[in-house]
Amino acid sequence: MSLESPPEILDVRTVATSRLFEIEAVDLRFSNGVEVGFERLKGSAAGAVLVVPITTEQDVVLIREYACGTERYELGLPKGRVEPGEALMVAANRELMEEAGFGAEQFDYLAELTSAPTYSGQRTHVVIATGLYPARLSGDEPEPLEVLRWPLADIDQLALAGHCTEARSIAALYMARAHLAAKASG
Amino acid sequence: MSLESPPEILDVRTVATSRLFEIEAVDLRFSNGVEVGFERLKGSAAGAVLVVPITTEQDVVLIREYACGTERYELGLPKGRVEPGEALMVAANRELMEEAGFGAEQFDYLAELTSAPTYSGQRTHVVIATGLYPARLSGDEPEPLEVLRWPLADIDQLALAGHCTEARSIAALYMARAHLAAKASG
Repeated sequence: MSLESPPEILDVRTVATSRLFEIEAVDLRFSNGVEVGFERLKGSAAGAVLVVPITTEQDVVLIREYACGTERYELGLPKGRVEPGEALMVAANRELMEEAGFGAEQFDYLAELTSAPTYSGQRTHVVIATGLYPARLSGDEPEPLEVLRWPLADIDQLALAGHCTEARSIAALYMARAHLAAKASG
Repeated sequence: MSLESPPEILDVRTVATSRLFEIEAVDLRFSNGVEVGFERLKGSAAGAVLVVPITTEQDVVLIREYACGTERYELGLPKGRVEPGEALMVAANRELMEEAGFGAEQFDYLAELTSAPTYSGQRTHVVIATGLYPARLSGDEPEPLEVLRWPLADIDQLALAGHCTEARSIAALYMARAHLAAKASG
Protein backbone atom coordinates (compact mmCIF):
# COMPACT_ATOMS: atom_id res chain seq x y z
CA MET A 1 0.00 0.00 0.00
CA SER A 2 1.52 3.24 -1.19
CA LEU A 3 0.70 5.30 1.91
CA GLU A 4 2.69 3.03 4.15
CA SER A 5 5.64 2.56 1.81
CA PRO A 6 6.90 5.79 0.27
CA PRO A 7 9.57 5.41 -2.39
CA GLU A 8 13.21 5.27 -1.44
CA ILE A 9 15.26 8.27 -2.57
CA LEU A 10 18.28 6.81 -4.35
CA ASP A 11 20.00 9.99 -5.45
CA VAL A 12 19.53 13.78 -5.46
CA ARG A 13 21.76 16.04 -7.53
CA THR A 14 21.64 19.62 -8.79
CA VAL A 15 21.34 19.68 -12.59
CA ALA A 16 20.79 23.40 -13.29
CA THR A 17 21.05 26.66 -11.37
CA SER A 18 20.46 30.32 -12.04
CA ARG A 19 20.46 33.41 -9.83
CA LEU A 20 17.04 32.52 -8.38
CA PHE A 21 16.36 28.88 -9.21
CA GLU A 22 17.85 25.51 -8.45
CA ILE A 23 16.71 22.36 -10.26
CA GLU A 24 17.39 18.92 -8.86
CA ALA A 25 17.23 15.49 -10.45
CA VAL A 26 15.91 12.83 -8.09
CA ASP A 27 16.09 9.07 -8.57
CA LEU A 28 13.39 7.12 -6.75
CA ARG A 29 12.63 3.45 -6.19
CA PHE A 30 8.94 2.84 -5.51
CA SER A 31 7.81 0.10 -3.14
CA ASN A 32 6.82 -2.07 -6.12
CA GLY A 33 10.41 -1.94 -7.36
CA VAL A 34 9.82 0.55 -10.20
CA GLU A 35 12.67 3.06 -10.48
CA VAL A 36 11.97 6.53 -11.88
CA GLY A 37 13.96 9.72 -12.40
CA PHE A 38 12.16 13.00 -11.63
CA GLU A 39 13.15 16.64 -11.74
CA ARG A 40 12.06 19.22 -9.21
CA LEU A 41 12.37 22.89 -8.49
CA LYS A 42 13.98 23.32 -5.10
CA GLY A 43 11.97 25.55 -2.74
CA SER A 44 13.60 28.20 -0.58
CA ALA A 45 14.44 26.90 2.89
CA ALA A 46 12.07 29.16 4.84
CA GLY A 47 9.36 29.20 2.18
CA ALA A 48 7.12 32.09 1.24
CA VAL A 49 4.49 33.98 3.18
CA LEU A 50 1.13 35.09 1.80
CA VAL A 51 -0.92 37.59 3.78
CA VAL A 52 -4.72 37.88 3.86
CA PRO A 53 -5.19 41.43 5.22
CA ILE A 54 -8.75 42.02 6.43
CA THR A 55 -10.15 45.43 7.31
CA THR A 56 -12.76 46.14 10.00
CA GLU A 57 -15.31 46.45 7.13
CA GLN A 58 -14.54 42.84 6.13
CA ASP A 59 -12.79 43.88 2.95
CA VAL A 60 -9.62 42.13 1.86
CA VAL A 61 -6.67 44.25 0.72
CA LEU A 62 -5.30 43.25 -2.70
CA ILE A 63 -2.40 44.52 -4.75
CA ARG A 64 -1.93 44.69 -8.47
CA GLU A 65 1.60 44.33 -9.78
CA TYR A 66 3.35 43.55 -13.01
CA ALA A 67 4.08 39.82 -13.29
CA CYS A 68 7.08 38.93 -15.39
CA GLY A 69 5.97 35.29 -15.76
CA THR A 70 2.68 36.11 -17.49
CA GLU A 71 3.71 39.51 -18.89
CA ARG A 72 0.66 41.32 -17.54
CA TYR A 73 -0.57 43.02 -14.37
CA GLU A 74 -1.94 40.52 -11.84
CA LEU A 75 -4.21 41.06 -8.86
CA GLY A 76 -3.47 39.08 -5.72
CA LEU A 77 -2.62 39.04 -2.06
CA PRO A 78 0.63 40.52 -0.69
CA LYS A 79 3.32 37.85 -0.55
CA GLY A 80 7.01 37.25 -0.66
CA ARG A 81 9.90 35.16 0.41
CA VAL A 82 10.72 34.63 4.07
CA GLU A 83 14.33 35.69 4.46
CA PRO A 84 16.81 33.33 6.15
CA GLY A 85 16.53 33.72 9.92
CA GLU A 86 13.44 35.95 9.67
CA ALA A 87 10.44 35.03 11.85
CA LEU A 88 7.34 34.26 9.80
CA MET A 89 5.15 36.98 11.30
CA VAL A 90 7.95 39.54 10.86
CA ALA A 91 8.15 38.58 7.19
CA ALA A 92 4.35 38.84 6.92
CA ASN A 93 4.33 42.34 8.39
CA ARG A 94 7.27 43.41 6.22
CA GLU A 95 5.64 42.24 2.99
CA LEU A 96 2.33 43.84 4.02
CA MET A 97 4.06 47.18 4.65
CA GLU A 98 6.19 47.01 1.50
CA GLU A 99 3.47 45.95 -0.90
CA ALA A 100 0.20 47.27 0.52
CA GLY A 101 1.20 50.13 2.84
CA PHE A 102 -0.28 48.58 5.98
CA GLY A 103 1.01 47.11 9.19
CA ALA A 104 -1.16 44.77 11.26
CA GLU A 105 -1.72 44.43 14.99
CA GLN A 106 -2.56 40.75 14.76
CA PHE A 107 -1.42 37.83 12.63
CA ASP A 108 -3.06 34.40 12.75
CA TYR A 109 -1.52 31.40 11.06
CA LEU A 110 -4.01 29.74 8.72
CA ALA A 111 -2.37 27.01 6.63
CA GLU A 112 0.52 25.87 4.50
CA LEU A 113 -0.01 25.66 0.75
CA THR A 114 2.05 23.77 -1.79
CA SER A 115 2.32 24.59 -5.50
CA ALA A 116 2.59 21.73 -8.01
CA PRO A 117 4.20 19.48 -5.37
CA THR A 118 5.01 16.73 -7.86
CA TYR A 119 7.76 18.93 -9.28
CA SER A 120 8.16 21.85 -6.86
CA GLY A 121 9.24 22.03 -3.24
CA GLN A 122 7.79 25.51 -2.80
CA ARG A 123 5.77 26.02 0.39
CA THR A 124 3.71 29.09 1.19
CA HIS A 125 2.55 29.97 4.70
CA VAL A 126 -0.83 31.69 4.76
CA VAL A 127 -1.40 34.25 7.49
CA ILE A 128 -4.51 36.33 8.28
CA ALA A 129 -3.71 39.95 9.21
CA THR A 130 -6.17 42.11 11.17
CA GLY A 131 -5.97 45.38 13.03
CA LEU A 132 -4.53 47.13 9.98
CA TYR A 133 -2.91 50.57 10.24
CA PRO A 134 -1.16 52.67 7.61
CA ALA A 135 2.57 51.89 7.52
CA ARG A 136 4.87 51.97 4.54
CA LEU A 137 8.20 50.21 4.13
CA SER A 138 10.16 50.67 0.98
CA GLY A 139 10.76 47.31 -0.72
CA ASP A 140 12.34 46.33 -4.01
CA GLU A 141 9.29 47.13 -6.14
CA PRO A 142 10.31 48.95 -9.34
CA GLU A 143 7.07 50.97 -9.42
CA PRO A 144 4.34 51.76 -6.85
CA LEU A 145 1.77 48.96 -6.62
CA GLU A 146 -1.92 49.59 -6.98
CA VAL A 147 -3.73 48.76 -3.72
CA LEU A 148 -7.45 48.05 -3.61
CA ARG A 149 -10.11 46.53 -1.39
CA TRP A 150 -12.52 43.79 -2.25
CA PRO A 151 -15.43 42.55 -0.09
CA LEU A 152 -14.55 39.18 1.42
CA ALA A 153 -18.19 38.21 0.90
CA ASP A 154 -17.73 38.59 -2.86
CA ILE A 155 -14.67 36.51 -3.68
CA ASP A 156 -16.68 34.24 -5.98
CA GLN A 157 -16.92 37.19 -8.35
CA LEU A 158 -13.22 37.99 -7.95
CA ALA A 159 -12.16 34.47 -8.90
CA LEU A 160 -14.84 33.34 -11.36
CA ALA A 161 -14.78 36.55 -13.40
CA GLY A 162 -11.02 36.20 -13.80
CA HIS A 163 -10.03 39.37 -11.92
CA CYS A 164 -7.62 37.25 -9.88
CA THR A 165 -6.04 34.12 -11.38
CA GLU A 166 -3.29 33.31 -8.87
CA ALA A 167 -4.03 29.91 -7.35
CA ARG A 168 -2.50 30.57 -3.92
CA SER A 169 -4.36 33.88 -3.54
CA ILE A 170 -7.71 32.33 -4.50
CA ALA A 171 -7.18 29.31 -2.23
CA ALA A 172 -6.13 31.54 0.69
CA LEU A 173 -9.11 33.89 0.28
CA TYR A 174 -11.63 31.04 0.33
CA MET A 175 -9.91 29.34 3.25
CA ALA A 176 -9.71 32.57 5.23
CA ARG A 177 -13.40 33.23 4.63
CA ALA A 178 -14.32 29.70 5.76
CA HIS A 179 -12.06 29.98 8.82
CA LEU A 180 -13.52 33.33 9.87
CA ALA A 181 -17.10 32.14 9.30
CA ALA A 182 -16.46 29.07 11.48
CA LYS A 183 -14.88 31.26 14.17
CA ALA A 184 -17.81 33.70 14.12
CA SER A 185 -20.42 30.95 14.34
CA GLY A 186 -18.53 28.93 16.92
CA MET B 1 -0.49 54.86 -14.30
CA SER B 2 0.88 51.36 -14.25
CA LEU B 3 -2.17 49.64 -15.77
CA GLU B 4 -1.94 51.70 -18.91
CA SER B 5 1.83 51.56 -19.26
CA PRO B 6 3.25 48.09 -18.80
CA PRO B 7 7.03 47.83 -18.77
CA GLU B 8 8.95 47.43 -21.98
CA ILE B 9 10.68 44.06 -22.41
CA LEU B 10 14.27 44.88 -23.33
CA ASP B 11 15.70 41.37 -23.51
CA VAL B 12 14.76 37.72 -22.91
CA ARG B 13 17.38 34.99 -22.82
CA THR B 14 17.59 31.41 -21.60
CA VAL B 15 19.98 31.14 -18.66
CA ALA B 16 19.46 27.53 -17.52
CA THR B 17 17.78 24.41 -18.87
CA SER B 18 17.21 20.86 -17.72
CA ARG B 19 15.17 17.97 -19.09
CA LEU B 20 11.90 19.51 -17.81
CA PHE B 21 12.62 23.15 -17.00
CA GLU B 22 13.70 26.27 -18.82
CA ILE B 23 14.68 29.44 -16.95
CA GLU B 24 14.76 32.81 -18.66
CA ALA B 25 16.33 36.10 -17.64
CA VAL B 26 14.21 39.10 -18.59
CA ASP B 27 15.29 42.74 -18.62
CA LEU B 28 12.44 45.22 -18.19
CA ARG B 29 12.14 48.99 -18.30
CA PHE B 30 9.18 50.25 -16.28
CA SER B 31 7.19 53.31 -17.39
CA ASN B 32 8.93 55.39 -14.70
CA GLY B 33 12.29 54.60 -16.31
CA VAL B 34 13.43 52.05 -13.70
CA GLU B 35 15.21 49.09 -15.30
CA VAL B 36 15.12 45.69 -13.57
CA GLY B 37 16.35 42.18 -14.35
CA PHE B 38 14.00 39.32 -13.43
CA GLU B 39 14.16 35.57 -13.81
CA ARG B 40 11.22 33.38 -14.68
CA LEU B 41 10.32 29.76 -15.17
CA LYS B 42 9.02 29.30 -18.68
CA GLY B 43 5.60 27.61 -18.83
CA SER B 44 4.79 24.88 -21.32
CA ALA B 45 3.17 26.25 -24.49
CA ALA B 46 -0.21 24.53 -24.07
CA GLY B 47 -0.28 24.79 -20.27
CA ALA B 48 -1.66 22.23 -17.87
CA VAL B 49 -5.16 20.93 -17.30
CA LEU B 50 -6.74 20.31 -13.91
CA VAL B 51 -9.96 18.33 -13.72
CA VAL B 52 -12.73 18.69 -11.11
CA PRO B 53 -14.60 15.35 -11.52
CA ILE B 54 -18.02 15.47 -9.87
CA THR B 55 -20.18 12.40 -9.28
CA THR B 56 -23.98 12.33 -9.35
CA GLU B 57 -23.83 12.24 -5.52
CA GLN B 58 -21.99 15.61 -5.59
CA ASP B 59 -18.74 14.07 -4.45
CA VAL B 60 -15.49 15.18 -5.98
CA VAL B 61 -12.97 12.54 -7.08
CA LEU B 62 -9.48 13.06 -5.65
CA ILE B 63 -6.23 11.19 -6.11
CA ARG B 64 -3.33 10.68 -3.77
CA GLU B 65 0.11 10.37 -5.30
CA TYR B 66 3.71 10.64 -4.26
CA ALA B 67 5.03 14.16 -4.83
CA CYS B 68 8.74 14.40 -5.45
CA GLY B 69 8.80 18.15 -4.67
CA THR B 70 7.57 17.77 -1.10
CA GLU B 71 8.71 14.16 -0.57
CA ARG B 72 5.35 12.96 0.70
CA TYR B 73 2.00 11.72 -0.60
CA GLU B 74 -0.31 14.56 -1.63
CA LEU B 75 -4.06 14.61 -2.14
CA GLY B 76 -5.40 16.65 -5.04
CA LEU B 77 -7.34 16.79 -8.27
CA PRO B 78 -6.27 14.90 -11.41
CA LYS B 79 -4.03 17.08 -13.54
CA GLY B 80 -1.27 17.06 -16.07
CA ARG B 81 0.36 18.71 -18.98
CA VAL B 82 -1.54 19.34 -22.21
CA GLU B 83 0.55 17.72 -24.93
CA PRO B 84 1.50 19.75 -28.01
CA GLY B 85 -1.39 19.68 -30.50
CA GLU B 86 -3.73 17.98 -28.02
CA ALA B 87 -7.20 19.52 -27.56
CA LEU B 88 -7.82 20.65 -24.00
CA MET B 89 -10.85 18.43 -23.38
CA VAL B 90 -9.01 15.43 -24.82
CA ALA B 91 -6.16 16.10 -22.39
CA ALA B 92 -8.68 16.44 -19.55
CA ASN B 93 -10.30 13.11 -20.35
CA ARG B 94 -6.91 11.42 -20.77
CA GLU B 95 -5.61 12.63 -17.39
CA LEU B 96 -8.90 11.67 -15.73
CA MET B 97 -8.70 8.14 -17.16
CA GLU B 98 -4.98 7.74 -16.39
CA GLU B 99 -5.04 9.07 -12.86
CA ALA B 100 -8.54 8.41 -11.51
CA GLY B 101 -9.91 5.58 -13.68
CA PHE B 102 -12.88 7.58 -14.99
CA GLY B 103 -13.97 9.02 -18.29
CA ALA B 104 -16.53 11.82 -18.43
CA GLU B 105 -19.47 12.52 -20.72
CA GLN B 106 -19.28 16.26 -20.22
CA PHE B 107 -16.52 18.79 -19.68
CA ASP B 108 -17.17 22.44 -18.86
CA TYR B 109 -14.42 25.03 -18.93
CA LEU B 110 -14.26 26.91 -15.64
CA ALA B 111 -11.20 29.19 -15.46
CA GLU B 112 -7.50 29.67 -16.03
CA LEU B 113 -5.23 29.71 -12.99
CA THR B 114 -1.71 31.07 -12.72
CA SER B 115 0.92 29.96 -10.21
CA ALA B 116 3.32 32.56 -8.81
CA PRO B 117 3.00 34.69 -11.96
CA THR B 118 5.76 37.08 -10.91
CA TYR B 119 8.28 34.37 -11.66
CA SER B 120 6.41 31.60 -13.49
CA GLY B 121 4.62 31.49 -16.81
CA GLN B 122 2.72 28.34 -15.87
CA ARG B 123 -1.01 28.39 -16.72
CA THR B 124 -3.51 25.77 -15.65
CA HIS B 125 -6.90 25.32 -17.30
CA VAL B 126 -9.60 24.19 -14.89
CA VAL B 127 -12.33 21.94 -16.27
CA ILE B 128 -15.39 20.48 -14.53
CA ALA B 129 -16.10 16.86 -15.52
CA THR B 130 -19.53 15.29 -15.04
CA GLY B 131 -21.25 12.15 -16.31
CA LEU B 132 -18.40 9.98 -15.00
CA TYR B 133 -18.03 6.34 -16.09
CA PRO B 134 -15.30 3.81 -15.27
CA ALA B 135 -12.50 3.95 -17.84
CA ARG B 136 -8.84 3.28 -17.31
CA LEU B 137 -5.95 4.42 -19.46
CA SER B 138 -2.45 3.43 -18.53
CA GLY B 139 -0.28 6.51 -17.95
CA ASP B 140 3.26 7.00 -16.75
CA GLU B 141 2.48 6.57 -13.05
CA PRO B 142 5.12 4.41 -11.35
CA GLU B 143 2.56 2.96 -8.91
CA PRO B 144 -1.25 2.81 -8.80
CA LEU B 145 -2.74 6.00 -7.38
CA GLU B 146 -5.18 5.96 -4.52
CA VAL B 147 -8.58 7.30 -5.65
CA LEU B 148 -11.12 8.63 -3.19
CA ARG B 149 -14.28 10.71 -3.03
CA TRP B 150 -14.93 13.76 -0.92
CA PRO B 151 -18.26 15.61 -0.52
CA LEU B 152 -18.11 18.88 -2.45
CA ALA B 153 -20.13 20.42 0.39
CA ASP B 154 -17.27 19.69 2.78
CA ILE B 155 -14.21 21.18 1.10
CA ASP B 156 -13.64 23.60 3.99
CA GLN B 157 -12.66 20.58 6.06
CA LEU B 158 -10.47 19.19 3.25
CA ALA B 159 -8.48 22.41 2.97
CA LEU B 160 -8.47 23.82 6.51
CA ALA B 161 -7.55 20.51 8.15
CA GLY B 162 -4.59 20.19 5.79
CA HIS B 163 -5.73 17.04 3.98
CA CYS B 164 -5.09 18.86 0.70
CA THR B 165 -2.43 21.58 0.46
CA GLU B 166 -2.10 22.09 -3.28
CA ALA B 167 -3.13 25.67 -4.10
CA ARG B 168 -4.55 24.98 -7.58
CA SER B 169 -6.66 22.06 -6.35
CA ILE B 170 -8.08 24.08 -3.44
CA ALA B 171 -8.78 27.12 -5.64
CA ALA B 172 -10.44 24.95 -8.30
CA LEU B 173 -12.63 23.11 -5.78
CA TYR B 174 -13.96 26.33 -4.24
CA MET B 175 -14.50 27.92 -7.65
CA ALA B 176 -16.29 24.84 -8.99
CA ARG B 177 -18.55 24.76 -5.95
CA ALA B 178 -19.40 28.46 -6.35
CA HIS B 179 -19.99 28.02 -10.08
CA LEU B 180 -22.31 25.02 -9.59
CA ALA B 181 -24.22 26.75 -6.78
CA ALA B 182 -24.79 29.81 -8.97
CA LYS B 183 -25.92 27.58 -11.86
CA ALA B 184 -28.31 25.62 -9.62
CA SER B 185 -29.87 28.78 -8.17
CA GLY B 186 -30.63 30.20 -11.49
